[in-house]
Amino acid sequence: MTTGTIHGVGLGPGAADLMSVRADRLVRGARHLAYFRKRGRAGRARRLVDGLLRADVVEYAMDYPVTTEIAVADPAYNACLAAFYADCTAHLATLAEAGEDVVVLCEGDPFFYGSFMHLHARLAGRVPVRIVPGITGMSGAWTATDRPITWGDDVLTIATATLPEAELARRIRDTDALVVMKIGRHLAKLRRAIAAAGRTDAAWLVEYAAMPEERVTPLAEAGETAPYFAILLIHGQGRRP
Amino acid sequence: MTTGTIHGVGLGPGAADLMSVRADRLVRGARHLAYFRKRGRAGRARRLVDGLLRADVVEYAMDYPVTTEIAVADPAYNACLAAFYADCTAHLATLAEAGEDVVVLCEGDPFFYGSFMHLHARLAGRVPVRIVPGITGMSGAWTATDRPITWGDDVLTIATATLPEAELARRIRDTDALVVMKIGRHLAKLRRAIAAAGRTDAAWLVEYAAMPEERVTPLAEAGETAPYFAILLIHGQGRRP
Repeated sequence: MTTGTIHGVGLGPGAADLMSVRADRLVRGARHLAYFRKRGRAGRARRLVDGLLRADVVEYAMDYPVTTEIAVADPAYNACLAAFYADCTAHLATLAEAGEDVVVLCEGDPFFYGSFMHLHARLAGRVPVRIVPGITGMSGAWTATDRPITWGDDVLTIATATLPEAELARRIRDTDALVVMKIGRHLAKLRRAIAAAGRTDAAWLVEYAAMPEERVTPLAEAGETAPYFAILLIHGQGRRP
Repeated sequence: MTTGTIHGVGLGPGAADLMSVRADRLVRGARHLAYFRKRGRAGRARRLVDGLLRADVVEYAMDYPVTTEIAVADPAYNACLAAFYADCTAHLATLAEAGEDVVVLCEGDPFFYGSFMHLHARLAGRVPVRIVPGITGMSGAWTATDRPITWGDDVLTIATATLPEAELARRIRDTDALVVMKIGRHLAKLRRAIAAAGRTDAAWLVEYAAMPEERVTPLAEAGETAPYFAILLIHGQGRRP
């Protein structure tokens, strides 16, 4: 018997027809399908493939044991997630060792701030794992603004809003183009950092890029909260003929 | 008569099945197809869609009038390219005004250091233009290394090797993860900048990501030259449970 392969498949930013032809083929053919989701939710990745799946698909929902209930800096957070990833890894490895291929749904691109990376690190060397890259959420976001993110020699800095405020402000001052991910509860801090860098008027907030709820708002006009699927952008203005 | 639409369609990093389902559908249905290429070459974008096109497709090859014969800093370079982009724009706008849709092939993601941006800026407001995002070449590159590019709070800096050496070294010292594009004739300079930042042992050179000629080499073992389709990476090492 041949060992099966675990496929970490990038789904892209959030429209089903923005997944790659390779991803589409793997998803439609999958006998075993796995995906992360917040406990009690349908899961965005899973909803994106509604209507594409085989009738006899076997689903394995990986419910996060914790999202924001424990602070990231608390050692209990790491312990809890490590045990969870170990469980998921054991389940997927057992399937592969029994000869089954598994498609793991990944929002955006699997190797760019993705959850599957935590399983990949544990599965690699044990069973075959293959990655299908995807269109990132940030590509979806700058496409939604209908303006290029980088020209010529522009430097693009990608940072997470989880960084300290002064560090964010320093990075924002020192770049041509900017993408900020993981905004969530950090919007007020991010806004102060952008103001400190004097770039509020150049900043855009993109929510739910490529999804039906897509919304593009100048940061100066944005509200006080942002959903998880929010990305902040400052477009580069580099040289162009 | 309705004005046609110019579609700037991202093809992804270089494998035909890594273009999106939406891109694949537009390419297969295109009556008018346009693409940039180096004069005298078949063009990578065009070759990628070999075998997908309608029998009655009308092709418009946009041959760059100059690539490296004139220095970028020379005003003649800008003048030459500006005239070329104006010609391309006029041709595409005329097609759209005659009611024809046109698919313009774009390597990678159209709004990320892409050539189509120069036409987009000239067409926007004159005829309808729509962008289909694509998987970037850098996603193809980090997938080729089989390792994630960013974890946790990692900062990712994307720079072009066209920057001055000291500026490159400063940026490389000040980031967790790194992507360098547009390497070409700047490899020796880039290598010195990475050595000055003390990160040679963490750097990888990826050539022709996602293409049959794909090659992943530790920078320390790479040769003296790199093709245009080369990307340098340093992976982030951020927190992980």
